[in-house]
Amino acid sequence: MDQCLGDTTPDEVLIPMQTDGSFLMSDDRVREPLLAARKRAMNTTSQTAIVGTKRCTIESLDYEVVENDLFKEDWRTKTRVQIFKYVCMKWSLALLVGLITGLVGFFFNNFCTFVAYVGCNLLLATVAAALCAYIAPAAAGSGIPEVKAYLNGVDSHSILAPSTLLVKIFGSIFGVSAGFVLGKEGPMVHTGACVASLLSQGGSRKYHLTWRSLQYIKNDRDRRDLITCGAAAGVAAAFRAPVGGVLFALEEATTWWRNALLWRTFFTNAVVAVVLRSLIVYCRGGKCGLFGKGGLIMFDMSSTVSTYSTADLLAVMILGVIGGFLGAFYNYLVSKILCQYSKINEKGAAFKIIHTMSISLLTSCCSYGIPWLARCTPCPPGLADRCPTIGRSGNFKNFQCPPGHYNDLASLFLNTNEDAIRNLFSGNTGNEFDISTLILFFIAVYCLGLVTYGIAVPSGLFIPVILAGASFGRLVGTILGPISDLDPAIFALLGAASLLGGTMRMTVSVCVILLELTDDLLMLPLVMLVLLISKSVADNFNIGVYDLMIQMKGLPYLEAHAEPYMRHLVARDVVSGPLLTFFGVEKVGNIMQILKTTGHHGFPVINEPPFSEAPELCGLVLRSHLIVLLKGKRFTKDKVLTGSTEVFKSFGSFDFAKAGPGKGMKLEELEISADEMEMYVDLHPITNKSPYTVVETMSLAKAALLFRELGLRHLFVVPKTPGKPPVVGILTRHDFMREHILGLFPHFNQRKKTNEEQT
Amino acid sequence: MDQCLGDTTPDEVLIPMQTDGSFLMSDDRVREPLLAARKRAMNTTSQTAIVGTKRCTIESLDYEVVENDLFKEDWRTKTRVQIFKYVCMKWSLALLVGLITGLVGFFFNNFCTFVAYVGCNLLLATVAAALCAYIAPAAAGSGIPEVKAYLNGVDSHSILAPSTLLVKIFGSIFGVSAGFVLGKEGPMVHTGACVASLLSQGGSRKYHLTWRSLQYIKNDRDRRDLITCGAAAGVAAAFRAPVGGVLFALEEATTWWRNALLWRTFFTNAVVAVVLRSLIVYCRGGKCGLFGKGGLIMFDMSSTVSTYSTADLLAVMILGVIGGFLGAFYNYLVSKILCQYSKINEKGAAFKIIHTMSISLLTSCCSYGIPWLARCTPCPPGLADRCPTIGRSGNFKNFQCPPGHYNDLASLFLNTNEDAIRNLFSGNTGNEFDISTLILFFIAVYCLGLVTYGIAVPSGLFIPVILAGASFGRLVGTILGPISDLDPAIFALLGAASLLGGTMRMTVSVCVILLELTDDLLMLPLVMLVLLISKSVADNFNIGVYDLMIQMKGLPYLEAHAEPYMRHLVARDVVSGPLLTFFGVEKVGNIMQILKTTGHHGFPVINEPPFSEAPELCGLVLRSHLIVLLKGKRFTKDKVLTGSTEVFKSFGSFDFAKAGPGKGMKLEELEISADEMEMYVDLHPITNKSPYTVVETMSLAKAALLFRELGLRHLFVVPKTPGKPPVVGILTRHDFMREHILGLFPHFNQRKKTNEEQT
Repeated sequence: MDQCLGDTTPDEVLIPMQTDGSFLMSDDRVREPLLAARKRAMNTTSQTAIVGTKRCTIESLDYEVVENDLFKEDWRTKTRVQIFKYVCMKWSLALLVGLITGLVGFFFNNFCTFVAYVGCNLLLATVAAALCAYIAPAAAGSGIPEVKAYLNGVDSHSILAPSTLLVKIFGSIFGVSAGFVLGKEGPMVHTGACVASLLSQGGSRKYHLTWRSLQYIKNDRDRRDLITCGAAAGVAAAFRAPVGGVLFALEEATTWWRNALLWRTFFTNAVVAVVLRSLIVYCRGGKCGLFGKGGLIMFDMSSTVSTYSTADLLAVMILGVIGGFLGAFYNYLVSKILCQYSKINEKGAAFKIIHTMSISLLTSCCSYGIPWLARCTPCPPGLADRCPTIGRSGNFKNFQCPPGHYNDLASLFLNTNEDAIRNLFSGNTGNEFDISTLILFFIAVYCLGLVTYGIAVPSGLFIPVILAGASFGRLVGTILGPISDLDPAIFALLGAASLLGGTMRMTVSVCVILLELTDDLLMLPLVMLVLLISKSVADNFNIGVYDLMIQMKGLPYLEAHAEPYMRHLVARDVVSGPLLTFFGVEKVGNIMQILKTTGHHGFPVINEPPFSEAPELCGLVLRSHLIVLLKGKRFTKDKVLTGSTEVFKSFGSFDFAKAGPGKGMKLEELEISADEMEMYVDLHPITNKSPYTVVETMSLAKAALLFRELGLRHLFVVPKTPGKPPVVGILTRHDFMREHILGLFPHFNQRKKTNEEQT
Repeated sequence: MDQCLGDTTPDEVLIPMQTDGSFLMSDDRVREPLLAARKRAMNTTSQTAIVGTKRCTIESLDYEVVENDLFKEDWRTKTRVQIFKYVCMKWSLALLVGLITGLVGFFFNNFCTFVAYVGCNLLLATVAAALCAYIAPAAAGSGIPEVKAYLNGVDSHSILAPSTLLVKIFGSIFGVSAGFVLGKEGPMVHTGACVASLLSQGGSRKYHLTWRSLQYIKNDRDRRDLITCGAAAGVAAAFRAPVGGVLFALEEATTWWRNALLWRTFFTNAVVAVVLRSLIVYCRGGKCGLFGKGGLIMFDMSSTVSTYSTADLLAVMILGVIGGFLGAFYNYLVSKILCQYSKINEKGAAFKIIHTMSISLLTSCCSYGIPWLARCTPCPPGLADRCPTIGRSGNFKNFQCPPGHYNDLASLFLNTNEDAIRNLFSGNTGNEFDISTLILFFIAVYCLGLVTYGIAVPSGLFIPVILAGASFGRLVGTILGPISDLDPAIFALLGAASLLGGTMRMTVSVCVILLELTDDLLMLPLVMLVLLISKSVADNFNIGVYDLMIQMKGLPYLEAHAEPYMRHLVARDVVSGPLLTFFGVEKVGNIMQILKTTGHHGFPVINEPPFSEAPELCGLVLRSHLIVLLKGKRFTKDKVLTGSTEVFKSFGSFDFAKAGPGKGMKLEELEISADEMEMYVDLHPITNKSPYTVVETMSLAKAALLFRELGLRHLFVVPKTPGKPPVVGILTRHDFMREHILGLFPHFNQRKKTNEEQT
């Protein structure tokens, strides 16, 4: 997985951040070293033709070509695995061909309906994919990993741009309408974050939607807080779960959490709740057509009987364990599939669209074809008005069945995802769904969810996981039906919880979201138990799905814990040189030279005699501030102090404020004459004179803790004994990354491997 | 309020804490300076006789004695206010005498029942007060402020001791049984924290309840985490609200929050939920007598109709505003009353008991006397089996009424607090309570809650506040009954939310707790709205009730935000000298001398030639570690390095582990001969070689941020220019306290006052 990069472009810019209230004072270096380290080795041997996708070394195979160094090492075992894989693939391809041919033959009889169904879906899918592929590639996928990374301090390219927002909204609408197995909660979170980002930038300057009064929150901390609120509001709106949204923002999204933030997200979500509630009430009278159906609780289960015995508790625990395994396996497969998809996405927009269209075709075939496999079931007595449902949404789809009968698979497949979940969660309906139905549906949804995520359409993961989990839970419930007191609907809820716990690894927020979705407070102890178990089981295998995606996209995410090997290193060990410094009063030419030749975002400023007794560290100066200062052209002929008041006369109050991503002043815009190059400029007014520092012998683990807890961008390493130059180096985010450190000290990696082999 | 100290003894010891995983490395100085600054001025003039309590300058008055300097300044206005106060007091005392005489006369007729009622309450109250006064004074009160302060790093004397735990449990049981207007959730939180603390100490050594395997979590960080879990479990158990408990721990209790902690508290509370649920199911068959009645939801309101119009929204907003005012006023009064009570408590245990008894008498008189003021109401039709209730708990108390009638005030007063809340929350009962009843009950409960908190009995604040809020809300609902769609029960819920928001200032946790208490998810938007409004309104007047108590008790709580004046100071400004340092290899006699003459908990270790090229900072050594090292007696005749392996041979793995509060080795236990005093000991093995440092010119606000975010105990201030001694001073918790800084720089306080006068 490490060899595969997601579709993130390499021009990510790091956003600076400081958790203190002082005016902002940090930035970062560009991250070429990391990307270089992560760039996967190209594989140009011929064997890739067999699999059909180029340039992937993981799934590639060839039992004839043995020149590849990878295979030379342990030829025997490797080749056996390769042969086995190859044979499996051959057989599964043959099976697929047979299946498709058979199905097409069958569909020929129902050609017209099939074509209409597939055509509509395909059209919608193509529009969604075209939007994503041509206008805003960043809008594809869930968006939660990117928002999470942003709140950690990593700003992926145009992830919060207005174009992304628009495509996210419409792409998501088209995507959901196209009948894909995907959710709208991830895109909603991303949408909320985009709106928040736009507001915090004072609107969009590109589209002439600006609001000048918003400029006073133009700093990283307020922007981050607002985006946290936006993410919370997204969950609140998607699930009608305001408290769950707050908890989601706290548990999953944010890196720096403060009580004030809790209060602010709560405020945002209270507004969401009141607005939602008002609109629901307004729309209840049928004023909004198809809009606004349903109440504040999406899947009401409060009427379900909820008594259970100790034996049920055991069953529920087993459900949790299986859910944990399934969740971890889901994460594993998602990462493998995304790895393959990234190669398709790299080929260009047209390939993205074709890819999306083929997945749409697959989904349509499955949802139209598989219901034919189900038997017709007679309607339960006393439900004549509800069963079968023809020409409207509901539990009991008629499909191909005679009157008075329904097709239970069609009730799940030929419905919106929400309605399918509602059907699975519907209580007191006994054996509405056959066991074979549930098995088929679970397998189909589990696989479709996997292949759908990663296509060029905004797609959430919650709904597919809930859908798969609910069908799996209902399956277990139906099997245990004769011996358990619990309603199969409760099992469906618990199954959803277990799979959510296994993939997302969230606890409190999933618990509250499920509670707010179903209003089934009495099930809370069981839901908590299942979440606990499934998360504990799954944590043994891999990390949560969002963290996995952050890792795959190569985003430099700052982890909460220092890695164990950091304890054996000191700060000095990982500082990479050479260090570039400025003097307090510096020659303009020198500054221009250094700014042009390096990509660093922050530089130490050093005072020398006559401005101090001995060379001493004055502070930190940012690239963006330097550019603004140079543009102001307050230069002097001699090396003299200008004074702050004098300098700030030339600048407005917002000149030094943090611009939106990609909106700051560019170095190329500066026009400085040869005469001016020889003049001096006083850097003291724009120097942050209280930078955080660590001694060079500080344990790297403790330096990492300082760096993360205070949300720093630059950390100065100062010498232990006086006499040396006053700064040894600067630590930035990338110096704490695993790749950087293990690149410098490969023996830590080896030691880890040795440990693993021994255990 | 600042002049009044709570009943905290001044021998509080600060617990060290480090958020990093390295072996613990910190401690603190004693806090005499703070206490000295806070000691209130004694007032020995004669005028205090009038009020009856000695030594309080706030409420004292005398319009004849004018020698007092306070009164000399502006004699005219002061005296008028004093006279007015005096006259008011005279009249109110006269009124009180009349009331009491009248009531006693009336009670004479019902003497026997009254005596039995009062006697039982008095007995229970006396037992509870005696337990608190003689065995564990720390068990009195809520306990939440102390737990909150502990999690911030302040260990009040014996606040988590086993004796406190026992008294808290039994005192709380007796206190609640005595019919006081107090809750059990604060004591439950404290109980949970005590249990967690005992477990983390490896049981109680004093009571021979130890468990050796628990010793590996004997460090501050794990102890703090476990206590957070305990506090969360307390709320979960008290309200049967596991998710609410997690959120309470996060929002109110903890200072340092991590995702891992969320997961751990969630685990604890899942266990609480499952245990509670199992016991409830087990007890449902009547197997536990009076125990275990009721379900998982304490005040079920899910059947209440919940439609509301826009006009109702307006009413609800006004409810929120009034609730905010009432809450802020409640906090104000609580602080004033606690200030008075602290003087009674200072007089000794006997006074505490008498005080508690008098409050018990007052409560009994109110709850027995006030119901006589209510009219008898005929039972509503169709409730013949439930109304009136005689000989059991229920909605419709018969009291003095003829058969078929009930006394609505008695239904509220002569019930447990929980049942009274349940009655107020009961929906679809129309005008069960008269407006006059609700007014009387609200006033009585509001005042009784105020005077009860602070007596020598474990007492929570949640239940009194919910009770007062619910009666206030139901009052508003009953008044608005003819014009509002909302049930008065819903108004009661919203009233409780508004008063909780106004006093506690919690949002998400109160919201979820109320949700879990009532299972009324559809009311969530309104509850959120009310909480928002009431908190916002109340925040304009004062801080939350728990923060207020921490302030009153003089606990050195580290605030989340740096105060504004800190930006104008640098780290060097607040360092208090003289600085005591050790050399890397130090003479035993010097160490003993310094340990005996100072109370500091941490010392810098400095390396000098020949052990380094120039004098340089080696690290931090703790008092507790020094004592352990000296006890090991690995001394050398000459100044030589001993080496870590050599030293650690003499010590077990747990010798340097953090002992429980007050359980560490004492300096007095050391016996060192005169010969040994002349020998040397190598401090390097026990020195923390990676202490966090700041440069002396670092802004104090940023140093405070570093100190708090990393949970430090000691922060070294190093010189900016080399050549000086390698350490300028140590910053500890008390150096960041408002009192310390404003003591050093009084002009900041004056400036603030000037600003206030100008605005």
